[in-house]
Amino acid sequence: MALHHAEPGEIVDVRPLGAKLRQGINATLVLTDRLQVFRFILPAGEEFAEHKVHGEIIVQCIEGEVEFSSRGKQQVLRPGELVYLAGDDPHALRGRCDASVLVTIVSEKQHHA
Amino acid sequence: MALHHAEPGEIVDVRPLGAKLRQGINATLVLTDRLQVFRFILPAGEEFAEHKVHGEIIVQCIEGEVEFSSRGKQQVLRPGELVYLAGDDPHALRGRCDASVLVTIVSEKQHHA
Repeated sequence: MALHHAEPGEIVDVRPLGAKLRQGINATLVLTDRLQVFRFILPAGEEFAEHKVHGEIIVQCIEGEVEFSSRGKQQVLRPGELVYLAGDDPHALRGRCDASVLVTIVSEKQHHA
Repeated sequence: MALHHAEPGEIVDVRPLGAKLRQGINATLVLTDRLQVFRFILPAGEEFAEHKVHGEIIVQCIEGEVEFSSRGKQQVLRPGELVYLAGDDPHALRGRCDASVLVTIVSEKQHHA
């Protein structure tokens, strides 16, 4: 799996990993001043404990099923479903079965007076 | 198809439209100060002529095949593939067959001194 970050205009593969999921690695696919896109792998039963990020975030389920907890409720994300959260919104994820998600984070750019 | 914009934490369906594609409509799914996510439908042979947007953009193919032209080259985007472009980078899209794409635009926030 490529560890380099895509150039503008470069095609990036975010298809399901399928049988290769457990050999897959979390990979940052796009990284710019404002934008970070990465694939995060959640094998069945594994958890990404509650955390928050400074910028707005989109989590899109690529494969499997993910328990997504935020704002006091737990929902199941299935392939082709996404959620977004405002910056600093605490959330947690857990794989109900082998799963991977595509995460997009919009950076809060630092502006200096 | 919902025309309302998702609230934070609300699950948004971006699965392929399949047989309903030609009855589908372009829909903005998420809209905040910084972030716009919409589904754009490209029936076979239809074109979204060259244009540019001010912010960084990600185009992800949901279904079908899309000719994506930018930076002097034409590529084919297939389901599960995405590209990003820097702001103001001209690009054009054309459906090679009935297709839909998920477009994410990071707004350039206006800062006033």
